[in-house]
Amino acid sequence: MRDVAVIGVGQSEFGKFPWKSAAAMGAEAVKAALGDCGIPPRAIQVAYCARQYDANCTSQQILKEVGVRNIEMINVENACAGGSTAFRGVWKEIADGRYDVGIAMGVESMTTSPIAGKLISPEKDDLEGHIGMTMPAMFGMVARRQMEAGATLEDFARVSVKNHHNGCLNPQAQYKREFTVEEVLNSRMICDPITLLMCCPNTDGAAAAILCSMDVARRYTTQPIRVLGSALCSADYKYAQEDICASPVGVKVAKAAYEMAGVDPKDIDLVEMHDAFASEEILRYEDLLLCKPGEGIEFLRSGATAIGGRVPVNPSGGLLALGHPLSASGVRTVCEVVLHLRGQAGARQTPNAKVGLAQMLGGLVTNLEHGAVAGIHILAR
Amino acid sequence: MRDVAVIGVGQSEFGKFPWKSAAAMGAEAVKAALGDCGIPPRAIQVAYCARQYDANCTSQQILKEVGVRNIEMINVENACAGGSTAFRGVWKEIADGRYDVGIAMGVESMTTSPIAGKLISPEKDDLEGHIGMTMPAMFGMVARRQMEAGATLEDFARVSVKNHHNGCLNPQAQYKREFTVEEVLNSRMICDPITLLMCCPNTDGAAAAILCSMDVARRYTTQPIRVLGSALCSADYKYAQEDICASPVGVKVAKAAYEMAGVDPKDIDLVEMHDAFASEEILRYEDLLLCKPGEGIEFLRSGATAIGGRVPVNPSGGLLALGHPLSASGVRTVCEVVLHLRGQAGARQTPNAKVGLAQMLGGLVTNLEHGAVAGIHILAR
Repeated sequence: MRDVAVIGVGQSEFGKFPWKSAAAMGAEAVKAALGDCGIPPRAIQVAYCARQYDANCTSQQILKEVGVRNIEMINVENACAGGSTAFRGVWKEIADGRYDVGIAMGVESMTTSPIAGKLISPEKDDLEGHIGMTMPAMFGMVARRQMEAGATLEDFARVSVKNHHNGCLNPQAQYKREFTVEEVLNSRMICDPITLLMCCPNTDGAAAAILCSMDVARRYTTQPIRVLGSALCSADYKYAQEDICASPVGVKVAKAAYEMAGVDPKDIDLVEMHDAFASEEILRYEDLLLCKPGEGIEFLRSGATAIGGRVPVNPSGGLLALGHPLSASGVRTVCEVVLHLRGQAGARQTPNAKVGLAQMLGGLVTNLEHGAVAGIHILAR
Repeated sequence: MRDVAVIGVGQSEFGKFPWKSAAAMGAEAVKAALGDCGIPPRAIQVAYCARQYDANCTSQQILKEVGVRNIEMINVENACAGGSTAFRGVWKEIADGRYDVGIAMGVESMTTSPIAGKLISPEKDDLEGHIGMTMPAMFGMVARRQMEAGATLEDFARVSVKNHHNGCLNPQAQYKREFTVEEVLNSRMICDPITLLMCCPNTDGAAAAILCSMDVARRYTTQPIRVLGSALCSADYKYAQEDICASPVGVKVAKAAYEMAGVDPKDIDLVEMHDAFASEEILRYEDLLLCKPGEGIEFLRSGATAIGGRVPVNPSGGLLALGHPLSASGVRTVCEVVLHLRGQAGARQTPNAKVGLAQMLGGLVTNLEHGAVAGIHILAR
């Protein structure tokens, strides 16, 4: 298996843009990624694009806009982990020697989809979805359990305050506004105890990353970022699991990625992860082995995950402030990690970052093991 | 690169089943494929599932029904070539040695999707779609050009008569009824010169194929079917191409598949292909190099592509009679070829079939080179 480098990253503007097509947003991200490394479009040999809602040859639609044609293009979907799946797809193609240069893309037009944002699942077999087990409902139940284990409403609010603070340092964030713990707690109740400002927003946007063999990378950059570890797995769907806060698949994928990368969780300098709900980020600290099981709350309170802390989590602003165009997020998290590893993350830069981790969880509500699918990539300079 | 075998194939009932979920139809196909080869579900290590409309972790939804969990699952989309993309995905995983056993699935619930079957494209950038360049409109225009080159209405009708005859020999076909040339010509006009019986129906259904390394194959079957060639490519999108009847990407992919397989078009014993419109099948004879350019009409008239002819095309009944659940078709065509290569195709069996070809074309209407993407697999016993 060959080493693979990320040489170009880019994202579109994130926000609510019902007048923009998925192809147009994708092309914005692709042009930014091409410009980032200076590789000509004709060098791209394979493309993967993630899109959950209204997919219709989205790779082809996007790449037509930038003159990339006549290559193998694969469109993927894996809920919120779709972008991770696209990135891993391109990584495999290059690692296995089938191609030398590829592009991973993710895009979502949440504001125009006839399906996206519908709280009730369109799947007729999704009994739990139909009786109200929506994403906020599930994470509300989980948050109540977290509180039995010692979490407070203030802890949840603090995650949102942290990530919105980070978003203010990121020119590409959807929301750039500081909030106080009180403002988060006093915002509209969505699903007790989750308030509006503890939820990620509905977001349109796209992200793209260009991957290549180390040989090709040396021609375009003096700062190739290596993919040390890649892991993707679907869940076990245990309806009777002991602990509804647990995500065994999240832990499994984290261990697989660390093992492949030959890296200890202590070596990770920054993390970009799925914080669709503020309360969720605390659980993920434990899944990613950043702290010991049961110590996520203390880890948050210690300030370890703030910018300037031991391991900044979601320095981009995360899904909470940067926004969450579902299938784009798994590529966008990789883009953010790459910027930090290159020292190009501006005001939110993690000092001297050497190794970073990009995680995404995705899944149906009908899955009490939250996360029907988890994808993790570990990158290093 | 390792040799890869297909050991199990299965399909669900094809028809209009608005009361069935995509997961339920997928599970029908997967159970049939598992039963076909006797491999236990726990042996499956990786899954790809194609679905164009309303995708939402479809692999996970289907495989939960049969107890396959905790593995890498990837959901793909490539319009009508989605199933070919899923099959190729699993083939790559095994050929490259990442996994030993995988399942390729395709499913579509056309009757329940809020998007499927809408003639007008939901894509806001799809100007041609919005002004009426729907699939029947495009193939109607192309058919008129074919007529300038010598094709007659009777030729188009004859393709439909042939494929409906074949469907009568296939217990799994959606329509099992013989039609005469007159009946096809006198059926309701859809888009001049294309009549209702020259169009494939709207169909719900699923198909599945189990692939594995040759080592594993020997444990489960005495009739492993080898994948000799696999090719997938997206088109060039030339808006000003000389000949609207041509599909350069179809020809390119056919040549790549033949080259990889080390097989001459003359060696192909049967073909399953994209006959979404009767007139289209004639063009595809030429794309697949089954006859010389410009000789497709004569090739049809000679009877070469009927059951009992030189190279039966769509002995299953094709999309016209068997039905066309978009993303299922690229897997289903492989299943049909496998049955013939094993000598298990019943009344529609191609005698002594040694090598077969499964093709699918997919694409947006906004693409005057019809086929935004083409996928071909060549299989042999």
